[in-house]
Amino acid sequence: MTKKPELVFVALGGAGEIGMNMYLYGVGSGRDRRWIMVDCGVSFGDMESSPGVEVIMPDPAFIEAEAERLQAIFITHAHEDHVGAIGRLWPRLRAPVYARPFTARFAALKMEEAGQDPGMIRPVGAWPETVEAGPFRVAFLPVSHSVPESSALLIEAGGHRVLHTGDFKIDRTPPLGEPFDEALFAEIAAGGIDALVCDSTNVFSDHPGRSEAEVAEPIAELIARAPGLVVATSFASNLARLRTIAHAARAAGRAVQVRGRAMKRMIGLAQEAGILTDFPETVGDEAAAEMPAERLLVLASGSQGERRAAMSQIAFGANDRVRLQEGDLVLFSSKTIPGNEKAVARVFNRLSELGARMVDDQDGLYHVSGHANRPDLAAMHRLVAPKLLVPMHGEHRHLVAHAELARASGIAAVVAPNGTLVRLAGGEPGIAGSVETGRLYLDGSLVIGAEDGVVRERLRLAMRGHVVAAVVVDQHGELAADPVVEVIGLMAEVDDEVPDLAVEIESVIELAFDRAERRELRSDEAIERMVATACSQLCNRLIGRKPLVTVLVSRVETE
Amino acid sequence: MTKKPELVFVALGGAGEIGMNMYLYGVGSGRDRRWIMVDCGVSFGDMESSPGVEVIMPDPAFIEAEAERLQAIFITHAHEDHVGAIGRLWPRLRAPVYARPFTARFAALKMEEAGQDPGMIRPVGAWPETVEAGPFRVAFLPVSHSVPESSALLIEAGGHRVLHTGDFKIDRTPPLGEPFDEALFAEIAAGGIDALVCDSTNVFSDHPGRSEAEVAEPIAELIARAPGLVVATSFASNLARLRTIAHAARAAGRAVQVRGRAMKRMIGLAQEAGILTDFPETVGDEAAAEMPAERLLVLASGSQGERRAAMSQIAFGANDRVRLQEGDLVLFSSKTIPGNEKAVARVFNRLSELGARMVDDQDGLYHVSGHANRPDLAAMHRLVAPKLLVPMHGEHRHLVAHAELARASGIAAVVAPNGTLVRLAGGEPGIAGSVETGRLYLDGSLVIGAEDGVVRERLRLAMRGHVVAAVVVDQHGELAADPVVEVIGLMAEVDDEVPDLAVEIESVIELAFDRAERRELRSDEAIERMVATACSQLCNRLIGRKPLVTVLVSRVETE
Repeated sequence: MTKKPELVFVALGGAGEIGMNMYLYGVGSGRDRRWIMVDCGVSFGDMESSPGVEVIMPDPAFIEAEAERLQAIFITHAHEDHVGAIGRLWPRLRAPVYARPFTARFAALKMEEAGQDPGMIRPVGAWPETVEAGPFRVAFLPVSHSVPESSALLIEAGGHRVLHTGDFKIDRTPPLGEPFDEALFAEIAAGGIDALVCDSTNVFSDHPGRSEAEVAEPIAELIARAPGLVVATSFASNLARLRTIAHAARAAGRAVQVRGRAMKRMIGLAQEAGILTDFPETVGDEAAAEMPAERLLVLASGSQGERRAAMSQIAFGANDRVRLQEGDLVLFSSKTIPGNEKAVARVFNRLSELGARMVDDQDGLYHVSGHANRPDLAAMHRLVAPKLLVPMHGEHRHLVAHAELARASGIAAVVAPNGTLVRLAGGEPGIAGSVETGRLYLDGSLVIGAEDGVVRERLRLAMRGHVVAAVVVDQHGELAADPVVEVIGLMAEVDDEVPDLAVEIESVIELAFDRAERRELRSDEAIERMVATACSQLCNRLIGRKPLVTVLVSRVETE
Repeated sequence: MTKKPELVFVALGGAGEIGMNMYLYGVGSGRDRRWIMVDCGVSFGDMESSPGVEVIMPDPAFIEAEAERLQAIFITHAHEDHVGAIGRLWPRLRAPVYARPFTARFAALKMEEAGQDPGMIRPVGAWPETVEAGPFRVAFLPVSHSVPESSALLIEAGGHRVLHTGDFKIDRTPPLGEPFDEALFAEIAAGGIDALVCDSTNVFSDHPGRSEAEVAEPIAELIARAPGLVVATSFASNLARLRTIAHAARAAGRAVQVRGRAMKRMIGLAQEAGILTDFPETVGDEAAAEMPAERLLVLASGSQGERRAAMSQIAFGANDRVRLQEGDLVLFSSKTIPGNEKAVARVFNRLSELGARMVDDQDGLYHVSGHANRPDLAAMHRLVAPKLLVPMHGEHRHLVAHAELARASGIAAVVAPNGTLVRLAGGEPGIAGSVETGRLYLDGSLVIGAEDGVVRERLRLAMRGHVVAAVVVDQHGELAADPVVEVIGLMAEVDDEVPDLAVEIESVIELAFDRAERRELRSDEAIERMVATACSQLCNRLIGRKPLVTVLVSRVETE
């Protein structure tokens, strides 16, 4: 028997964090190793750590350097954290991208948005259809999740077999999309699975997961009883939920209006792909404006309190077509993603001030998660009976807890945060090395490195404010004009004695020049240092903080 | 029978938000109205909405204008959101401050820190002791909460009686501090209560509250079973919890070390005030360093993931005295306050990477809340049987839900967010007007208004980056020196063709001057506008965004 080649796994994103998934599988060794990528997603920036950044992506530098040996990219499902970066990063990867038809349409849009050829996205069918990509054979196995057509992947290479779950839950009765097919997984597992690379998101949820179908009745009852206008929100990609809400509206004699680009787009894509065939006819702005409130339901995007989304605009009155009144119902059929609590609370409170009756998932009636809870993860472990478990899609503590769960039932497990190269098969399984990882920020139209210092500088500007000083210096090192100072993000008026901080700083700069030795002023750098120090000391004394100081030195010749 | 004078209530902070509590009661009318203030607290700034701001306070302008008719200030308990602003705002209020002894010590510290006379804080005893303040008679009624000596206030004026709960829970068996005394409340209520002004924080928690005593056994068991080092955190002011943890450590044969200024200070104050008599002896840094890990428990401040707190420093290795090892236990005996989720997750994940076993309040074993849950609020309503309920200490939706809860059992209720003047008695109860409210930011050593635009400018700096341009112009409107540009919080290198954005902007400024009509350049404002427009357009084209632009114009004379 010839020795089977080594099969390795490494996450460039998604392991040690929830978001921006990017996983690699490699078979063979050294310069003969061939790769495939699974998912190519984004995270979103926030004020706390990345102000001004719209989108965060894994840095694909490691695989970019091996791009000619990257055989293909597979997208498991149509969520931003799994496919959002494909358009931006594809030019660095240049491999064909495989996805099931609806997901492929979504990925093609991402390519178009980034000016890339959507033709690189190749729609494929589910198991038993199989994609051959160099030494890899990959099949899409339908799983249940919060977007239709979600898939696990069966990855075969070098005589090894790996099951990559993607995001999944065990839902046997989803109202839209494919039910979890235990028999299919059992059949595939019967051939032996070397490694299960598995979603860890809900490892801390102890109760068994509930079916998406369970929210239909509570939602229908809630809407049937509502007296006035109903506004409902959920994740734009949760088409099953949107469909449930829309059907509930129709059943209650209400027309349905959809507000929000993301939501309209998802519904449209799903209809085109033929996986959403019975979404009720919706009404446009004009028709909606004519309807009595009690005959209308508005489906609005923005369940996470996003400032520009329809729900925020309704709350803050920017959307003058939808005016909430005392007693109207607003349903958040969603969970608040950690980190968004304040943004959501801001919208909730504004809606509350308008007199709306707020209903959220608080008691679990109106929302279920799309991820497998702890008992369902254990069920998946039992079903697949892998030789090795590698937890993915989780923060570090999720990965650790998931590994412990597997070990408790006798399955070996490896915690492998981003960059950890794991040997899955073809040798002793376990950690076999590490590769460089990082993050890229999409900032305006530029892609910048997270370590480039740009964002650090922005945080400093925000925390400390900015003093800018322009000095004009002649060939003798003398001031040739009055210094000009502006303070930005600082209070100009300190107190009655210092009505204008900028003027005070200008005086202190003149004083510094008066007192300086001529030789101190020879270089621009020396002048910048002197002026910055004078500004800093003065601000510390007057306002109790040291702002960021930028000094601009202009040189003129005088006679 | 003479008509009783009007008694009114207005919140300047704390109603419509959780934090910075400041409530006013007034008796009489017009220029004869006399006021008392209850609580004078802060909120904390965050990057999302107030970068660089340490502390947020209610703007007391309304009562400042009536300061000579403000009879007294009463502090219900020693939490920052109830007393944190007293030092900073006292000079605007200049009324005597009453609090029970431990709370008074904490308030005196706040006065000292702000350079005010701690002698203005007057310690008083609990009911039946009563403070006379002009037409008001006020008594402190002990309640259970998450800091000892918390009190409700019985406020009597003009023949009316109001019960202001402060923060409270119904805990009949607290291990430290006074139990909730149902008999006392019943006795007081027997005299008739016109209005109950009541904590709303936990109105959405449906299960009955649990006693602080219930966490003692789980914590003791957890610590007894821990093999290596134990690090535990909770709120610095939750002295009952710190005591429980410390006793559990001693029972398990561990020495206790306290790390963190806030925690040490709270323990010290409570010991001085004689309300914490049996806290175990603690060990210092030197002694702790000598201890084997399994004989030590470190109590660390920083349960909310605060970057500078002891727990963060332990996680990120800044504290080289405490080194966590695989299998050590870290207990978060606390809840994560909404908005702090990401900061806490950051610490959790770092601790997880170090191999620590993380335990939090997830299953409610190791933490209980200090606020009354929904059934306990209902019990309070029954106990006091007020004529009117005014919910406080909650976001808008909490106030609404609390009012509905009261109405459901036949009690009239008024939702009165900050600034809403409510007539409690001496006339038809209900909304009777409104007063100006606002927020003040403590920023460095300055107090600035939330509406002054400073913070808005900082957010813009952070979101958009900053371009600063210095131009030197002669009397003819010609450039007398090369323009100097710096970009801050922006990527300098755009691509191979534009290796330095600042240099590119400098060229575009020169070009703008070349092309400008002389008369356009007559005023500095016109020059600033022209340069800013040129910068903006170029940046939009090159980097896909418009940064904030500051133009500094210096004038020189040339021959």
